[in-house]
Amino acid sequence: MSLKAFRGAFLDFVDDPFYASEADSVRYLPDGLLLLEDGKVKVLGTYESLQESYAGIPITAYPDRLIMPGFIDTHIHFPQTEMIAAYGEQLLEWLDKYTFPTEGKFHDKAYAQEIASFFLDELLKHGTTTALVFTAVYPQSVDAFFEEASRRHLRMIAGKVLMDRNAPDFLTDTPETAYEESKQLIEKWHKHDRLLYAITPRFAVTSSDEQLRLAGKLLAEFPDVYMHTHIAENIKEVALVAELFPDSKGYLDVYDRAGLVGTKSVFAHGVQLTDAEFQRLSEAHSTIAFCPTSNLFLGSGLFNLKKAKSIDQPIKVGLGTDVGGGTSFSMLETASEAYKVTQLRGETLSSFQALYLATLGGARALSLENTLGNFEPGKEADFIVLDPRATPLMARRNPSAIATSLPELADQTFATIMLGDDRAIHATYIMGELAYENEAYRQTGAA
Amino acid sequence: MSLKAFRGAFLDFVDDPFYASEADSVRYLPDGLLLLEDGKVKVLGTYESLQESYAGIPITAYPDRLIMPGFIDTHIHFPQTEMIAAYGEQLLEWLDKYTFPTEGKFHDKAYAQEIASFFLDELLKHGTTTALVFTAVYPQSVDAFFEEASRRHLRMIAGKVLMDRNAPDFLTDTPETAYEESKQLIEKWHKHDRLLYAITPRFAVTSSDEQLRLAGKLLAEFPDVYMHTHIAENIKEVALVAELFPDSKGYLDVYDRAGLVGTKSVFAHGVQLTDAEFQRLSEAHSTIAFCPTSNLFLGSGLFNLKKAKSIDQPIKVGLGTDVGGGTSFSMLETASEAYKVTQLRGETLSSFQALYLATLGGARALSLENTLGNFEPGKEADFIVLDPRATPLMARRNPSAIATSLPELADQTFATIMLGDDRAIHATYIMGELAYENEAYRQTGAA
Repeated sequence: MSLKAFRGAFLDFVDDPFYASEADSVRYLPDGLLLLEDGKVKVLGTYESLQESYAGIPITAYPDRLIMPGFIDTHIHFPQTEMIAAYGEQLLEWLDKYTFPTEGKFHDKAYAQEIASFFLDELLKHGTTTALVFTAVYPQSVDAFFEEASRRHLRMIAGKVLMDRNAPDFLTDTPETAYEESKQLIEKWHKHDRLLYAITPRFAVTSSDEQLRLAGKLLAEFPDVYMHTHIAENIKEVALVAELFPDSKGYLDVYDRAGLVGTKSVFAHGVQLTDAEFQRLSEAHSTIAFCPTSNLFLGSGLFNLKKAKSIDQPIKVGLGTDVGGGTSFSMLETASEAYKVTQLRGETLSSFQALYLATLGGARALSLENTLGNFEPGKEADFIVLDPRATPLMARRNPSAIATSLPELADQTFATIMLGDDRAIHATYIMGELAYENEAYRQTGAA
Repeated sequence: MSLKAFRGAFLDFVDDPFYASEADSVRYLPDGLLLLEDGKVKVLGTYESLQESYAGIPITAYPDRLIMPGFIDTHIHFPQTEMIAAYGEQLLEWLDKYTFPTEGKFHDKAYAQEIASFFLDELLKHGTTTALVFTAVYPQSVDAFFEEASRRHLRMIAGKVLMDRNAPDFLTDTPETAYEESKQLIEKWHKHDRLLYAITPRFAVTSSDEQLRLAGKLLAEFPDVYMHTHIAENIKEVALVAELFPDSKGYLDVYDRAGLVGTKSVFAHGVQLTDAEFQRLSEAHSTIAFCPTSNLFLGSGLFNLKKAKSIDQPIKVGLGTDVGGGTSFSMLETASEAYKVTQLRGETLSSFQALYLATLGGARALSLENTLGNFEPGKEADFIVLDPRATPLMARRNPSAIATSLPELADQTFATIMLGDDRAIHATYIMGELAYENEAYRQTGAA
């Protein structure tokens, strides 16, 4: 039994601030103590209340820092790391011109491993500890990703991409090979260490009805794996899907009739969803990954977060960076763009709501709320140490490092979202072990 | 006579890439030599062509860097530095809740000086060498700003804010005091060192007809000073102006009939302009400052850049950060958000077009094209040294530091815009003198 303790200001969520009051959903301890046992949370409480009971345990202290659960990115593509910020196109042309040629390189396992390693280091550097990840069509790209994730003891969800049409030959599989290869990968990787598998048809445009049907069969055979795909990102894409599936009742229906719409199904984007599709996703307890930097960069449109988070018809929502359609690995920058999307819609998004989406909300979106997402006892201790004063401008905007009230914390965290990037991530811990430390802090020897 | 030489890759613009071809508008020298005489450009050419003629002059070399003219920010508020990223409101409520209380502090000259100093350091750190700046209503806030700008030998344009209604008493002047104080400030600061003055009514909502009329009278008396204001940012604001000026033909007309619409008039935002107003701004050779981070953050809307830059009815356009309504001091991040705005409109913005707006386009927008904005002989040598590989992600995305063709440069600069921030600014030079050097490069001893 290994015990560890961390002292600092702690922020996590115990309920959903879209529905519950801040007082009921936000837990904030300006001077807290987090006890870990074998990499999991034993207890979080005020330093004052816990210090005597755990007097013998050495404490890692982070004064002037805010400790939060690690960020959860509910939609990202690891093979697109190197093609982030590709110029000038909307979705369908962007796929043909940039994405497909890049993903072709992932036939080479060694190359896939190199990029997976870089990708996971970038995630940790940006404070992201769990992600739902697209690989490429090649099983070896999945192996490469999971091997690197396993080496880092990360809780990651990923799967082989399924594509049997409307893509270059070198990137396509068949309904049968997609089924067989995915099945083997599930048996190899699902629940291996902290890893989980997602059956991953790219989207309806690049999968035949038969491929989707077999994907649904596989999901029925392994009901606790995930299903991860894209939906209704772009107007031209929606029109193309209608053309490709003339007998479907709509985009979501293409997936639904294949048995792909369930509680562990995650649909990226949903910018162009119809009212009926919102309703169906709510009923099915499926998840939408809201990817604002991508939706703006590719000109896809403004996601209706308010509708997705309505009380009458709630849908599970997570935030996704969608690198490389997204423009940043940072969940802070993603939350900042999410705010701008809501503002353009005449709505708003509080910093607590945004940080909820990036932590416990993301865990719920990925059906991991019993495993991680906040500091409840028994949960895996993946957490980050934030510096709200990481740059001269942030330091001026946030004169106090430690907020003394919820309104002050709301303001401080909002400024941190709007102005912050990876420089605001002082350290990232995985299962209670230091996995990343920002070199700016190593030099000056903080804590 | 003092001669200096800089060697590196150089990028500037000799024409407008919205109208001219890239070949005719972009000047790129992968291995160039820039000669300066007394802080001004003597000549820029290839290293090969110039090295013999100037053999005796010591050369400052920046291998693996891109040297560009300094960025020009055509709309920013120095007193709003500390309130950047204020939560949850659109324009009118945001002014009442955050802006007016903050600007009240600038009655204190010492405080204004402290913020002006911080503000100008932030500009230099982000590669911005010239800006058109709102101060506060107090003449001492103008003095503070110009004194700090003068100490740094910067070419800056600013002016006292005019507001005689719809603002707290402590922030208002009168038509007469506004006229008198502005006149004294013009006589004191306009063309003092490199400084220039702008008559600065905040916007039609906070100025009476009489105040605008006297501002127009002052502009007629000093025809070479600037006029700087806001226009048509937000729908509710436009409606309020219509209500406040029931006999006007529209928002622009309120300024026009006061004599405030001319070739040195700069209007920030213009998101909600009518077709007739676009036409009038084109005819008057006035400028619009496009402020994308602000327009998204405050939910103002998507500026029609394509219309403003149309061939038939061209309008001078510059980019503005609009800090504190804007969310970043970085013109790279501003250009990145400008790209997203155009994408959401189904249009696009090339990296050369964006960088033109941030340099020569900004100079033209401020009628400074004979003074700065590119490396033409005789121009003031305010320039920046960019690192397209400043972070691990940028280094992976931009494998070569030096582009060898225009398409490669377009791609490299686009990625630099999308992924870059102040970390990509290695150094900033003012009149040929080093004014800022990024400490990351000081430590590793680049060049």
